[in-house]
Amino acid sequence: MKNSCVRFSTRLPSRFDFQNSVLIYDRVLEKKFGPWIRRFPRRYGVRSGEYLKAVENFAGHAAAISKVGEGLSVREMQIVALGGGSVGDFAGFVASVFKRGVRLVHVPSTWLSAIDSAHGGKTALNVGGIKNQIGTFYPASEVLICRDLLLNQGPARFDDAKAEAAKVALLTSAALWTKTQKVRDESGLFRLLPDLIRAKLKIVALDPKETSGHRHLLNFGHTVGHALESSLHLSHGEAVSLGLRFAIDWAGGALAQKDLWGIATRAQLRRALARLKNPARALAQDKKMVTNKRIRFIFVSRPGYPSIREVSVSDILAEIERQKNA
Amino acid sequence: MKNSCVRFSTRLPSRFDFQNSVLIYDRVLEKKFGPWIRRFPRRYGVRSGEYLKAVENFAGHAAAISKVGEGLSVREMQIVALGGGSVGDFAGFVASVFKRGVRLVHVPSTWLSAIDSAHGGKTALNVGGIKNQIGTFYPASEVLICRDLLLNQGPARFDDAKAEAAKVALLTSAALWTKTQKVRDESGLFRLLPDLIRAKLKIVALDPKETSGHRHLLNFGHTVGHALESSLHLSHGEAVSLGLRFAIDWAGGALAQKDLWGIATRAQLRRALARLKNPARALAQDKKMVTNKRIRFIFVSRPGYPSIREVSVSDILAEIERQKNA
Repeated sequence: MKNSCVRFSTRLPSRFDFQNSVLIYDRVLEKKFGPWIRRFPRRYGVRSGEYLKAVENFAGHAAAISKVGEGLSVREMQIVALGGGSVGDFAGFVASVFKRGVRLVHVPSTWLSAIDSAHGGKTALNVGGIKNQIGTFYPASEVLICRDLLLNQGPARFDDAKAEAAKVALLTSAALWTKTQKVRDESGLFRLLPDLIRAKLKIVALDPKETSGHRHLLNFGHTVGHALESSLHLSHGEAVSLGLRFAIDWAGGALAQKDLWGIATRAQLRRALARLKNPARALAQDKKMVTNKRIRFIFVSRPGYPSIREVSVSDILAEIERQKNA
Repeated sequence: MKNSCVRFSTRLPSRFDFQNSVLIYDRVLEKKFGPWIRRFPRRYGVRSGEYLKAVENFAGHAAAISKVGEGLSVREMQIVALGGGSVGDFAGFVASVFKRGVRLVHVPSTWLSAIDSAHGGKTALNVGGIKNQIGTFYPASEVLICRDLLLNQGPARFDDAKAEAAKVALLTSAALWTKTQKVRDESGLFRLLPDLIRAKLKIVALDPKETSGHRHLLNFGHTVGHALESSLHLSHGEAVSLGLRFAIDWAGGALAQKDLWGIATRAQLRRALARLKNPARALAQDKKMVTNKRIRFIFVSRPGYPSIREVSVSDILAEIERQKNA
């Protein structure tokens, strides 16, 4: 799997191959970035969210995008994905299968996609209720990280981003964790992006197609996180920050019990767990939960020292009970 | 791109990983091969043909196959494609995107798929009127060539197969062309399959993802062939045999004017061309025709010496006129 070229810029580029691109973009960006979007003669606006990734809508999108791209040869054409995670997952999938694969450029517009989903090549669609049941490994040729886009999101999204930043930093090293803790604001997070992205890509490079299990480390905080996200209708960042707290406290060690940058407090987690009416059902909704009820759970007891341990669903349920009442 | 392992057998294997397979099969095979098909606890019968490849039906297929495969992990699961070209194109695409890629086994049931489409990794769906607009490069882990299946097709299919065999042989070498001309019946063709498949895979290996242009050689006879196929509603083999005659006569050289094994006669081609009411429109329907109206056309003047030359649509139209009246 080739690596993507990651570029950083202050503004959306005025020099760009607009002519040979098919822009797939989140329509909410039209308001602030309309002039740049309209420089693409071929463009396809979408509404972001999981609905975009439903395979039931794929035929309609494919026909429309096929029309928009008409006349471009497979060699000339590139798909530019401008948006957050769902737009990137969707447009990445389209690029990977359109004419058996055309060039792909990601322009992430959210912190989560800039830190995480735009890198590593995962694309995805949902089938019925099952998230990411269909997809490909198809790294973008280029990921363009643009300051103007990212700083346009407002403070709530910044809080969301912290959890993914904390996750990658804790998996990587004490040095990156120390740097991450010093981030005060969005400008600081933008400056840290190269380090965070490099850290994620290092993990991906060990296991590009999820065959060795190493890439599973990136699931740190996501097991209980996903259960909370779907059951309590939390944002992804909020849920991951709670999931990270759960995993860290379970591991014990130097990090447990401390307040940690970007990660929920024990009190916050306790309150969330108390609201979780049926933890067993919430866990079962995550597709990673079903394989013989054995789950590879990620523990980090100090920064840079992750470990994977097989636990059972009932182990997790017991730990949820313990932490709820601790 | 990994190579597929190609296995030859007399009968459908009784030892096989039936438990971890999802069989996608052409329903017409149930009559004669029902007992083998029913050994798969997880199976999905389809109706073969281009309709199967319509992206409009893909969501329904994906949901059904997802249900059939429920409980198998991405590592255990394999998709087994039992059928001809359209079943292989479709099931190959499913395997390439299901859970971001599961193991694929092709069991071709037609000569055309056994010689050609099961090898080389192309998968495809159609978008609206555009054939193979979506797809992947995803070689099967294993291609199982089974004598019982192939000899079950009857003589009409054998005639169809000859054209693809002749194509590959002419592209490859005088030795293979000589061997091919000696094939008298279906048993003879089955014995020649290893040579024919090796010849195709050699071309594919030079250009696995169609980037260098070398793989385009396999289009020999298909430019005018496709135009005749869709306009006159011919079988693929019949159309290719006419297209090969057209290309060979255009090239001139030692092969032109002779009667050739598996390839239409001049008289047959003349009659077909006379029936072609609007050649310009027929040519334009093939997606490979539109790029600036320049077409890379394959010529073979003697066995084993193919060449690619850029011609214009009007060059082809003029040559059609010439051959029609020659």
